[in-house]
This record gives sequence, structure tokens and C-alpha cells, in this order.
Amino acid sequence: MDFTYYNPVHAYFGAHCIEKHPEEFTRCGRRALLVTGRSSRVNGSLDDVTSVLDAAGIAWDIFDEVQQNPTIASVRQGAAFARSHGNDFLVAIGGGSPMDTAKGIALLARQDLPDDRLFSAEYYTDDVLPTILIPTTAGTGSEVSEYAVLSDEKAKTKLSISTPLIYPRAAFLDYRYTRSLGRNNTVYPALDALSHSIEGILSQKGDPMITSLALEGIRSIASCFPAMLEFQLTDSDRERLLYGAYLGGLVLAHTSTTVVHAMGHSLTVSRGIVHGRANALCLPGYLRFTARTAPGPVERILEAMSLDSLEEFQDLIDRFLGEKEVLTEEEILAFTRVTAPKRNIPNCLVVPTEADIEAMFREI
Amino acid sequence: MDFTYYNPVHAYFGAHCIEKHPEEFTRCGRRALLVTGRSSRVNGSLDDVTSVLDAAGIAWDIFDEVQQNPTIASVRQGAAFARSHGNDFLVAIGGGSPMDTAKGIALLARQDLPDDRLFSAEYYTDDVLPTILIPTTAGTGSEVSEYAVLSDEKAKTKLSISTPLIYPRAAFLDYRYTRSLGRNNTVYPALDALSHSIEGILSQKGDPMITSLALEGIRSIASCFPAMLEFQLTDSDRERLLYGAYLGGLVLAHTSTTVVHAMGHSLTVSRGIVHGRANALCLPGYLRFTARTAPGPVERILEAMSLDSLEEFQDLIDRFLGEKEVLTEEEILAFTRVTAPKRNIPNCLVVPTEADIEAMFREI
Repeated sequence: MDFTYYNPVHAYFGAHCIEKHPEEFTRCGRRALLVTGRSSRVNGSLDDVTSVLDAAGIAWDIFDEVQQNPTIASVRQGAAFARSHGNDFLVAIGGGSPMDTAKGIALLARQDLPDDRLFSAEYYTDDVLPTILIPTTAGTGSEVSEYAVLSDEKAKTKLSISTPLIYPRAAFLDYRYTRSLGRNNTVYPALDALSHSIEGILSQKGDPMITSLALEGIRSIASCFPAMLEFQLTDSDRERLLYGAYLGGLVLAHTSTTVVHAMGHSLTVSRGIVHGRANALCLPGYLRFTARTAPGPVERILEAMSLDSLEEFQDLIDRFLGEKEVLTEEEILAFTRVTAPKRNIPNCLVVPTEADIEAMFREI
Repeated sequence: MDFTYYNPVHAYFGAHCIEKHPEEFTRCGRRALLVTGRSSRVNGSLDDVTSVLDAAGIAWDIFDEVQQNPTIASVRQGAAFARSHGNDFLVAIGGGSPMDTAKGIALLARQDLPDDRLFSAEYYTDDVLPTILIPTTAGTGSEVSEYAVLSDEKAKTKLSISTPLIYPRAAFLDYRYTRSLGRNNTVYPALDALSHSIEGILSQKGDPMITSLALEGIRSIASCFPAMLEFQLTDSDRERLLYGAYLGGLVLAHTSTTVVHAMGHSLTVSRGIVHGRANALCLPGYLRFTARTAPGPVERILEAMSLDSLEEFQDLIDRFLGEKEVLTEEEILAFTRVTAPKRNIPNCLVVPTEADIEAMFREI
């Protein structure tokens, strides 16, 4: 039982948590850059943040040119914005895209890193802007992790900035901001979060403590499966999804991801399938593959979801996903070639060969 | 479900974890003060630390005048030692006493606080020495908490320095250092750790995440009950006790303690009963008291210990403690008067009145 545990994020969970903790903003700086998309104007989160900042006498600017699956270029644009406005901290509001954009800006606003050094921590100095992250979807877990996933348009793949330097100072998790999410923006992020916890258990980097947090995360999300299928979610469901996503984020921050996310990235970058759906397409195959060699952990995962078999799990995922995408033979081979050398493959509890990955793509 | 979670300690768990992570020492400073008792010379921990420091070219001094249940005076003595030797960080090796001494020194080496301000965080500035904590008993959890418990000899009680400023930078948890512990130094700290997790669940400050960590901690310690009763512990048992104590520490850092520790402090200060034993004497009574109003959480605790009833739990504790101390009528009344106004009493999930506390003292 050898492990390391570290997560320095100050997490505040619950309704109205932002207004209860203005001190977190005050201690970060004097001029905030709010990094956000459109939805924060609708779900109340942006108003809550600006109210707290205004009351605290903290100046703020908005960078709302956040892209879905943010590119390196868009992060460079945000970094230039922060430099020119003299922002000394960042507040990201939204899903994974604004949060990962903000974490990228935190680094690039202070450091001049060319593209070929951007994803190599050995080139970073300690000088980054502090960030406060406010998720308005329940999925990514980015609010408690040291990763920023960016799309490399040239390489047609996603790459991660991965450094403890970009751990957020604080995360505010208020389920009220997720109330207005539609079906897809609720279900796919929830399945992404589920995948974080499942992949954490089925990871070489897993350990008893992470497994314990992950099982709690799985139970919390699974308790919402019926409500998700009907798409009739109470505030309590929303809260449990956000809690499950937070725990999935703690797990993800520790174990990183496995072949599920590696495969999913190809589906997102090449086929435009949204992140959570892409992972959900790959997840049952990874469970079946792992169960052949390591049935114990897979059984604990099923038990935490109150499911009796992998067939039941596949059936559940199929109900969430509806009609599934069909991959061509060329796509399967191309995606396998891109996926096999990825650095999260060796994380897998049972490491798949290139042939195994191809087989998992076929199973989709 | 409103909660905050924060714990910034970098925890390294496993055999030889110190030698694997010299960077933690290097990043703390140039001249360490090692705060320790005698046992670190026997169990190998002191040699492991000095080897790493020597190899890293870090100078070090030793302060080994650590008291059991450290007093304010002994911490002031250590702080003067650190100032006169120019130490810029602290490494504590041992049980709760050296660790709490080091955390007190971390504050007092840099800040001039008279006794009447020492336990009031509003008087502290940010200037403290960084600490690295290395527990060699499996119990206190001090290695991951923001508390330093000191004995106030004048007031005949214990008081806590409680501030995020004294969170350790890192904790190294190597079960090999606990191999040489005798029966009492194994069993009593384990019961203390068990109490941290149980009190965390039975606390107003508890929440689902803390409950989840606490249940994992309880399961880990309870899995060693048979080995503890026989006092035949394998390395795997030692590892699970240390893991359980670490989780108990995370819980404690979050929820603080309840009436169990409040009562236990009186038994320690006035009757000289060691900390873990003192808490174990009080624990069954608090479970019975709470179960009357809030049976659910108590049932989950019993289930995590694989016990069927509170009678079974009392029986188990009795077997661990052997012949129990008898309190006189005067002691019961005096201890109740000291305990009732303590600031951890309102933490209790079911808050006991002074009469309830008296009744719990009688049940011992």
C-alpha cells in the first residue's frame, strides 16, 4: 500500500457558497479576469461572482471567447488579454472548457512557452496566476485537478498541461447553477464523472484511499441514474451529481485517466462527439476488458452502482446514449494508431495492447 | 449537503517513503530542527531522516526535550532553540507529542505571543516555519491536521492552537517505524484514531465526504482488532493501522473532536491516563448517548467495525483496556465542570448537557 495523496484545493460545496466566502476572492488579488462562456449569464453564476467582487472592491474584466474543447490559440488569446488588462487572478465559470482555458491562461499569462514546450512541466517556472474555479456542469472535475486539457489542432488530438502549479486556489460548487442544464449537458458530464471514478479504480495509480473516494463518487452518481433516465432531476439529484463529479475530480487529479479517455479524445477530436458521451461509448468495453483479468475491482464498481452484471451496465449506457455512432474501418484503425501511444495507456490496471484497443473500438 | 473540504498536506505513505522524496526536505529550507523523543533513535526513523538531510546538504540540529503531553513552556523552549540555531524548518519524528511540539514551535519561533494570546488565531501573523511530520505511532493524526494540543499546567487542562498556518507541508507515513511499538503504544493510539473517525461521523461538522473517509478509516482499524487483541501484528496490520490513523487525522482536521476528547483530556491531565486510553474509556458512552437520538450513524459505525451491537463494542473496548480506572464522586463532578464548557462540546451530533456529561463520566 504505497501511495501519495495531495490536493490543495479549498472546496466549498453548497447553495450560495460563493457569497458566503468573499475572502477567497480577496486573498487572490485586486483585478480578476472572468473566463466564461454564455451559460453563466443565464444560470446566475456570473451575477453571483460579480456581486461578490463588486462588494469586495475587486475590479474585473470578462474574457468570454472560450471555445468548446479549447485550442492552444484560444488560451494564448486569453493570456494576452490578461496581460494587457493587468489581471492578477482568474475566475473561471462554466464547464470544463472555461476552467481548462483559465488554467492554461494562468500559466501562459506569466510564462512565454512555445507550443513545443507547453505540455512539458520541466520548462515551467513557479510564476502562475491564482485561479478560482466555479463549475456549472457536474462532470469535468477540472475544479480540483492540476490538468488543463487543450486541443492541438495541428496534431488533431488533445494534450494536457499537467502541473501542481495550476491547482486552483478554490473551487465553488453550487448545484443551483446546474438546474438549467438540458438533458445532454446533464447526462454526458455525469457519465464523464462516473468514468473518472471508475478509471481511478481501474488504474495502476489507484490505491485504497482513492478507491474509497471513487466508490463514494460512483454511488452518488448512480443514485441519480433513474432521475437521469427520466430527465426529472430534483435539487437533491443535482446536488448528488455535483458531489459525485467533485469526488471524480479528486480521483482524476490523483490517478489521471486511462484508455477510456484516450480513446474518447479521438472520438471528440475527429468525430466531434462531446467529451462525456465519447467516454461513455468507451467505458463498457474497458470494464469488460479489465474484468477478464481483474474481476474483483470491476465487481466492486458494479456493486457501487447496484448493478448485477456488465450486461446491465452496457444496457444502462445504451439507454443513456440512444443511437450510437458507427465507426468506419478506417476510423477504427486510425483512432487505434493515435490512441495506443498515449501516455495514459500505461495507467490502465490491465494495460491493453494495440490489438486490445482496436477490439475496444470495434465494440463501440 | 453544505460542506468545505481543504487539506493541503502532501502525504507520502509506504515503506521507505522518506528516502524516495528528498525533494520535500530540500524545498522546505536549509537548516532543519529535528523535534523528537527517544524512540526515533530505536525505530530507524531518525537515521532515515538524517541520511536524507545529509545527502541533500541540509544542516540539522536536534531538539529532543519533548515532553509527553507537551506544555506551553516546553514549546517556548523549543522555539528559543530554533531561533538561536537559525533553523528555517522543522521535522518532527514521533507520536503526537513531538508533532504537536513542532507545530507549536513553528508558530512561536517566529511570533511573540503571550500565553493569553497563544490559543487565539486572531493574533497570529502568516509568519510560521514550515514543518514535515513523521508519525512513528499510528494514532494521533497530527501529521495532517492544523491543531497542536498543549497542556496548560496552570489551568490543568489542554488547549489547542488551531490555525491553517500550522498545517504541515508534508507527512511521511512509513509503517516500519511502528514495528517496535509495544502493546500499549499500539493499542491506545489505534483506539484514539478509531475515535477520531467515529467522532467525525458523530459531529455537527460531519458531511458525506468526511463520513466516507471516516468509515474507510474505521474499517481499516477494525480489520486489525483480532491482531490487536492477540498483540500479534503483521506488517500488513501495521500498515492498515497507520492508514486508519491517517484517515482519522484527515477527519479530525476537518471536524475537530467532540465530547469524547473533551472528557478524555480531563482524565489525562488530572489522572495521567494516556490520551488514547482516556478517549477509549469515554467512547462507548458517547455512542450509547448518541444512539438514543440518532441511531442511524451509530449503526453505520458498528457495521464498519463488523459489530452487531453497542454491547459488543463495549465488550471489545473492555478487552482492550483491561482493568478500568475508578473515578471518585469528587472527580466525576470536577471533570464534568471542566468538560461542559469546552469548545468541542457543541460539535457533538447530539449535544450533551452537563447532566449528560456527568452521566457519561459515571458510565466509565
